[in-house]
Amino acid sequence: MVQAQSKMLTLEEFLKLPETKPASEYINGQIIPKPMPQGKHSRIQGEFVAAINAVVKLKKIACAFPELRCTFGGRSTIPDIAVFVWNRIPCDENGEIANAFSLAPDWTIEILSPDQSQTKVTKNILHCLRHETLIGWLIDPEEKAVLVYRPQQEIEIFDEPDALLPAPSFVSELNLTVKDLFAWLVL
Amino acid sequence: MVQAQSKMLTLEEFLKLPETKPASEYINGQIIPKPMPQGKHSRIQGEFVAAINAVVKLKKIACAFPELRCTFGGRSTIPDIAVFVWNRIPCDENGEIANAFSLAPDWTIEILSPDQSQTKVTKNILHCLRHETLIGWLIDPEEKAVLVYRPQQEIEIFDEPDALLPAPSFVSELNLTVKDLFAWLVL
Repeated sequence: MVQAQSKMLTLEEFLKLPETKPASEYINGQIIPKPMPQGKHSRIQGEFVAAINAVVKLKKIACAFPELRCTFGGRSTIPDIAVFVWNRIPCDENGEIANAFSLAPDWTIEILSPDQSQTKVTKNILHCLRHETLIGWLIDPEEKAVLVYRPQQEIEIFDEPDALLPAPSFVSELNLTVKDLFAWLVL
Repeated sequence: MVQAQSKMLTLEEFLKLPETKPASEYINGQIIPKPMPQGKHSRIQGEFVAAINAVVKLKKIACAFPELRCTFGGRSTIPDIAVFVWNRIPCDENGEIANAFSLAPDWTIEILSPDQSQTKVTKNILHCLRHETLIGWLIDPEEKAVLVYRPQQEIEIFDEPDALLPAPSFVSELNLTVKDLFAWLVL
């Protein structure tokens, strides 16, 4: 169980702290460590980042980032996968990808870990939707289901193996079914 | 962890089986036992049923039922609390409350148990919303949060102690805050 610590730091103070393993998120003044990634989480994260980037990165449409700290709206959270369309990826003066991402991803993807609070993860997705995120996925490896969140809409749950998962329009070539996604769990 | 059994019975065959403890739900052809209720679950369920009925039962506006089997839309599920407005409560030929409820509650309330799949519970709430249910609550005692689901709307999460929880209009006198709800956990 992830336990909230009761250190009250400002967001600015929190961001100056060294990064830890597992990384911590800053939510409503509290520092909350993410769960240590385990096998299923790691596998889906790795395969999914590669699958998204295979269809959007070379064409400079978008880029998927694993474990990227995103700081906006008074919180600093780390989606398991954050996808940004190309022209929203922040760069520094050298034209390189910036280190600090102070904006919401276009697509946020969370992969539920055993014993992780699904309510906490859901709150992080809603925080994204209240900013600029178009769509949030919550992948439940145990239930083989994907919960899809969009602003101002009822959530949708996809668990039929052949159901096509609704990716945002800029990744329309992804064509990923529920079965495809959870097939990554099998070596 | 709740495990799905692989008995494939029809809904009619399932409904003829004797009730078990814990009770089982029939979802997409599978028989899924509910978790055995534990202390926090039991306490919130008992207090909440009493609180709702205190404002609506005597006036014959509505009635809250704990652990009532509701069979509709091809599933047979058991909300932790099912609230029906008075004129939708089914009666038998003697004018008594019927045993079989073949309709969706107006308000469905689920209380998350430790190790229960929040995705499974969320699916049951969405099933209700696709039928006649106006509002669904998912109470997370661990996180001291209430997730509120309404048809065609983005979910809302209430976790500020003084936040007034959105009850359906027929229970407008309830005036329950997050703090009030979780105060029931303290003797």
